[in-house]
Amino acid sequence: MSDTRSKFVEVYSVLKSELLNDSAYEWTDDSRQWVERMLEYNVPGGKLNRGLSVVDSYKLLVEGKELTNDEFFLASTLGWCIEWLQAYFLVLDDIMDNSHTRRGQPCWFRVPKVGLIAVNDGILLRNHIPRILRKHFREKRYYVDLLDLFNEVEFQTASGQMIDLITTLEGEKDLSKYSLPIHRRIVQYKTAYYSFYLPVACALLVAGEKLDDHVDVKNILIDMGIYFQVQDDYLDCFGEPGFIGKIGTDIEDFKCSWVVVKALELCNDEQKKFLSENYGKDDPACVAKVKELYKELNLQGVFSDYESQSYEKLNKSIEAHPSKSIQAVLKSFLGKIYKRQK
Amino acid sequence: MSDTRSKFVEVYSVLKSELLNDSAYEWTDDSRQWVERMLEYNVPGGKLNRGLSVVDSYKLLVEGKELTNDEFFLASTLGWCIEWLQAYFLVLDDIMDNSHTRRGQPCWFRVPKVGLIAVNDGILLRNHIPRILRKHFREKRYYVDLLDLFNEVEFQTASGQMIDLITTLEGEKDLSKYSLPIHRRIVQYKTAYYSFYLPVACALLVAGEKLDDHVDVKNILIDMGIYFQVQDDYLDCFGEPGFIGKIGTDIEDFKCSWVVVKALELCNDEQKKFLSENYGKDDPACVAKVKELYKELNLQGVFSDYESQSYEKLNKSIEAHPSKSIQAVLKSFLGKIYKRQK
Ligand SMILES: [Mg+2]
Ligand SMILES: [Mg+2]
Ligand SMILES: [Mg+2]
Ligand SMILES: [Mg+2]
Ligand SMILES: [Mg+2]
Ligand SMILES: [Mg+2]
Repeated sequence: MSDTRSKFVEVYSVLKSELLNDSAYEWTDDSRQWVERMLEYNVPGGKLNRGLSVVDSYKLLVEGKELTNDEFFLASTLGWCIEWLQAYFLVLDDIMDNSHTRRGQPCWFRVPKVGLIAVNDGILLRNHIPRILRKHFREKRYYVDLLDLFNEVEFQTASGQMIDLITTLEGEKDLSKYSLPIHRRIVQYKTAYYSFYLPVACALLVAGEKLDDHVDVKNILIDMGIYFQVQDDYLDCFGEPGFIGKIGTDIEDFKCSWVVVKALELCNDEQKKFLSENYGKDDPACVAKVKELYKELNLQGVFSDYESQSYEKLNKSIEAHPSKSIQAVLKSFLGKIYKRQK
Repeated sequence: MSDTRSKFVEVYSVLKSELLNDSAYEWTDDSRQWVERMLEYNVPGGKLNRGLSVVDSYKLLVEGKELTNDEFFLASTLGWCIEWLQAYFLVLDDIMDNSHTRRGQPCWFRVPKVGLIAVNDGILLRNHIPRILRKHFREKRYYVDLLDLFNEVEFQTASGQMIDLITTLEGEKDLSKYSLPIHRRIVQYKTAYYSFYLPVACALLVAGEKLDDHVDVKNILIDMGIYFQVQDDYLDCFGEPGFIGKIGTDIEDFKCSWVVVKALELCNDEQKKFLSENYGKDDPACVAKVKELYKELNLQGVFSDYESQSYEKLNKSIEAHPSKSIQAVLKSFLGKIYKRQK
C-alpha cells in the first residue's frame, strides 16, 4: 500500500470515530454499533479512486510542494466525503436494482436483519457528509461553497438516477427510447459529476480557487466522465471477465448502454427487429445472438475510433488550458483511464 | 380557506415550477412529468401545519406588523421546505414500514410503475430543499445558517428513525427493550426537531436572530414535541377513530408507544407476562386484551395527569422567557396542541 493510500485510510478512522461520538445525537450502545458496522461494510471497501484523487489533484495544484499534515488531512477528508457519497448512492441503487452483490459481498440490504433499514442507512451515510464538513470546514472561507457543491452534485446524480430509472421502467422494454442523447444525459448526470468533477472541484476549493472561474475545467471533466462510462459500457460486453472482476449483464438487464445505442444507429430495419427480439432477455442464447450482431456491426472498431477521437479531443482541450498545474490535474485523470482494460 | 393558507399554497406553485425548470439539470418531457406528478402526489396534500407555522411564527416575531410580500414569500418558502422534508421522510418511511395508505391514498411506492423508484424520488424531494434555499436565500446573511439548520435537523431525524427501526427489529419482539428513556429518545429525534424546532428556527433566522442565542427556545420546543408525540401515541389507542381520521394499529405493530411504556412501568410480573403474550399480535382478541389491561392500569388517568403536568411545566418555561414575542410564538404552538382530540 502506498504511503498516500495508507495515510488516507487513517483519516477514515478519525472521521468514523468522530461520527460515532457526534454530540448532535444521544447514542445508545446499539445504535453506535449499528452505525459502525454499517460504515465498515459500505464505506472503506471500494477502490477509493474518487477519494484519493482529491489528494492527488490537490498535490498537483500546489505544484509538488510537500503538503502539511493539515492540508493532507483536509484534502483526504473531502476525499472521504466523496467515498461516503458513493456509498450512499450504492446502498440505495442496489435496493432499487434488486442487486445481489457489491464489491464481492452481499449488498447491504441483503445482510440478515438489515433489509429495508438499508434505506435509512443510506440516508444516514448522506447525512454524515454535512456533519464532517461542518466539523472540519466551518471556519473556512469556502465552507458555503463546499455545501453548495455537494448539494448541487448530489442533485445532479439523483436526477441522473431518475432518468435512468424511468427510461428502463420495468414492463416497458422499448429500444426505440434509447439514443445517444439520452445515454449521454444519463451518464453525465448519474456518473460524471460526482466521479470526475467533484474530486477536482474539492481540490480547487481547498487550494483557494473559486469554482465559477473554472467552468472550462468542469466541462472537460464531464466529457471525461462520459468517456469513462462509455468504456464501462464497452467493457461490460467486450471486456475480459477475469480482468474486470465481474461478468457483465447489461444485455440481459436491458441497459441503455453505449454499445446498444451505437448498434441501433448502425442497424438496418431487419437487424433492429432482431436486436429487439433478443435484447434484455435473461437467456444465454439471446445474449449470444446480440453479441453476434455487435460483431457484424463492427462495434469493437467503432469503439476503438470513439476512444482515439475522445482522447485526442480531451487532450486538445486540456492543452488549451492556461494553467500548467490544472493541465497536470486533468492529464493525470485522463492518463489513468485512457485505454483501460478494467 | 383562510387568506394566509391560500397565499401559502400559491407559493407552492411558484416553487414547483422553478424546480421543474432547474437549470442544473437538462430536462426531458418524461422526467419533468415524472417529477411534477411525484410532487403533486406527495408534497401539498398534508395538513400543512408545519409549513404554515413558519409564517405564523414569523408574524408573531415581528409583533403583528403587516408582512411585505417579500417577507411573506420568504417565510412561506421555508415553510414549504419543511413540507418537502416531511414528504421525503414519509415516502421513505412508508417503504420501510411496508405501509399501505398515507393521507387517504395509496403510499407513493404502491402506485403502479413507481415501486422502488420511490426511493430515488424521496432522495429527489430531499435534494429540492437546497435547490430552493439556494435560489431564494443565497444572498442572505443567514444562508449558511439555514443550510446548517436543515442539515442538522435532517441528521437528527434520520438518527431517530434508526433507533426506532433497530429497536423494533422484525423477529426480535422484546418488550424489555422498551422504556421511557428509549421512547423519549425516539420521539425527540424522529419527530420533535423537525416538527417543532425547525419551523420556529426558520422564522427566527428570517427575523435576523442567531440560533445560538435561542437554545432555551429549542429546549422548550423539543419538550413540546415530545408531549405532542405522547398525545399521538395516546390517541392511537384511546382516540375516536372517526375523529382522528384513522384506526390506530400501534398495538398490533409492536410500537414503542408511550402507552405501552407506561403500562410496563405499572405492571406487576403477571401483568407483564400477559402484556408480552398479547402485544404486537395482529389478532383483534389480543388487541382487546391489551386494551383491557390498559384500563385496569388506569392509563387514561395516567395520561390525563401527564397532560396537565406537561402543560403546566411548558407554560412556566414559556413565561420565564424574557421576550414577549417569543412567548407568543411558543404559546401559539402550545395552544394548538393542548388537549387536542385529533
Ligand atoms: Mg445498480
Ligand atoms: Mg441503478
Ligand atoms: Mg456498467
Ligand atoms: Mg411509518
Ligand atoms: Mg417508521
Ligand atoms: Mg402514531
